[in-house]
Amino acid sequence: MNTNVIGVDMGGTKILAAVVNAEGRILAAAKIPTKADKGATVVIDRIASCIQKAIDKSRVAPESIQAVGIGAPGPLDPGTGVVIFAPNLGWKDVPLKAELETRTGILTFVDNDVNVGTLGEHTFGVGQNVQNLVGIFVGTGIGGGIIMQGELFHGASKTAGEIGHIIVKADGPRCGCGTRGCLEALASRTAMTKQFQKAILKKGKKSILSELTGGELGLIRSGTLAKAIQRKDKLTLKVLKRATKYLGVGIGSIVNFLNPEMIVLGGGVVEALDDTFLDNIRAAVEKYALPNTLNGVQIVRAKLGDDAGILGAAALARQRFKAA
Amino acid sequence: MNTNVIGVDMGGTKILAAVVNAEGRILAAAKIPTKADKGATVVIDRIASCIQKAIDKSRVAPESIQAVGIGAPGPLDPGTGVVIFAPNLGWKDVPLKAELETRTGILTFVDNDVNVGTLGEHTFGVGQNVQNLVGIFVGTGIGGGIIMQGELFHGASKTAGEIGHIIVKADGPRCGCGTRGCLEALASRTAMTKQFQKAILKKGKKSILSELTGGELGLIRSGTLAKAIQRKDKLTLKVLKRATKYLGVGIGSIVNFLNPEMIVLGGGVVEALDDTFLDNIRAAVEKYALPNTLNGVQIVRAKLGDDAGILGAAALARQRFKAA
Repeated sequence: MNTNVIGVDMGGTKILAAVVNAEGRILAAAKIPTKADKGATVVIDRIASCIQKAIDKSRVAPESIQAVGIGAPGPLDPGTGVVIFAPNLGWKDVPLKAELETRTGILTFVDNDVNVGTLGEHTFGVGQNVQNLVGIFVGTGIGGGIIMQGELFHGASKTAGEIGHIIVKADGPRCGCGTRGCLEALASRTAMTKQFQKAILKKGKKSILSELTGGELGLIRSGTLAKAIQRKDKLTLKVLKRATKYLGVGIGSIVNFLNPEMIVLGGGVVEALDDTFLDNIRAAVEKYALPNTLNGVQIVRAKLGDDAGILGAAALARQRFKAA
Repeated sequence: MNTNVIGVDMGGTKILAAVVNAEGRILAAAKIPTKADKGATVVIDRIASCIQKAIDKSRVAPESIQAVGIGAPGPLDPGTGVVIFAPNLGWKDVPLKAELETRTGILTFVDNDVNVGTLGEHTFGVGQNVQNLVGIFVGTGIGGGIIMQGELFHGASKTAGEIGHIIVKADGPRCGCGTRGCLEALASRTAMTKQFQKAILKKGKKSILSELTGGELGLIRSGTLAKAIQRKDKLTLKVLKRATKYLGVGIGSIVNFLNPEMIVLGGGVVEALDDTFLDNIRAAVEKYALPNTLNGVQIVRAKLGDDAGILGAAALARQRFKAA
């Protein structure tokens, strides 16, 4: 019976592949470095060999594999499986689906990594049985995915879900996208890093972050934030309070506009936050959401953690295989 | 053959009812005052008699009527047809669907007036054959509706589409909803009126609006704005330029987040605007939308005008009748 699928999580530094059964159980997984600097052909070879490793390890019959699902960074066309642009990998117009199918002989489906993460939470995580949900992932940037009527919604230009670029403060701080006041410019780790640098380097504020980063404030990671929160670092708490307020403003906009049943919050920054900050986000949402719009809307943490990428990709493989 | 439907547009001052055939042609229409001050029972009696008038005038056989569709103000439950709260009418928890069905004996479907206007543009107006679109109606307030996969999307709390309350400028001007920085607080006629009053009464700016309103600046209507635009009134142009910029910011957020195929702009204020302002809105959207997200997204004027309410309600009757 061909009831197994392969889920692949392709990042800038590592490739993860897993054999996942119909119940969403990971039967076996493999991990190898991406070696992005060697170019697209080598990386795709490496993905294929990582898939083979996972199959070998799982001991399932290769013919039991229905399809491969893969979450890739950057804007891409989920129909053709072409990665349009992925600056982390140095990719432009790479036909990932076709190239992988040639190498593995297995039907392959590609989608954006954040969409895949959202689908994973819908299929195997916190959003099971929820028909309409929005996933928000906060890290270096802020990405998101939209599930409508149980399926990923891609939109007219296949770019739906760019919640990091809803404008919450017109004429506000400059964003990496070139405009101003985007949610990402106010609440991502990149935005917070700028605030830490300004406070510590320009205003001379004290913070444990100087010690935790060895003075390299540009290297603040989500784990660094978690440590600084545990140590109750005043500046960290202040900056995070502001960022989570703006997250609440953005979520409030979405609750008023799209009114989904669930908002799933994930990503490194959210994992670093203790529940006080989740409460801070919810308080801001309550302030900005219209009366009654929050009835029936849950705001919850993602629960798949490190497995989100492979499980989401497995869910993608299963859903698209059924529809194909 | 029962292929006709009735569309009802119920406003605070007048009730419109029309018999509409399968092609969306209005066979006959009737109009009577709402008399909202007489209370819900009288208003519902009047809706029933307005429907009867339209049927009589159309000379179609009463048994040719499939269903009645009605667009009503205020938050309501489209499933039960209960109007939860309509301050304009003084209504609270009025079972509009049930009461009308008792009086007319015809299956009746109720939805929010802005949703109905959006559905009308989708079915008979500018959005025909578009699967995913967002309607934005700018008047005293700013309302909206969302069509997903060809049908009205209501959301978890039946409140989806409240685009007037996406937050475009956190900590910005106070909004009627109690928070700050909503699109409605920056780009509705109410928001503009406040700016006109401040400029003319407090800052002593000259404007033709003083003359056009007989000094009663609180009474600026969309027609007043249209006249002031024609006369190239400097203050009017300035205030409208600012408002249309914020409309563009809000639409930019929606293009980035939901990426619909079409944004339909309607309502009194939009009807008053000449094409220069539409270009101003589009320019702001282009500035705030991410690269590629605007590919395949049309930003267009609504085209049903005064008939939007009855045609939309007719479309509602037809769509819900089919699904029932």
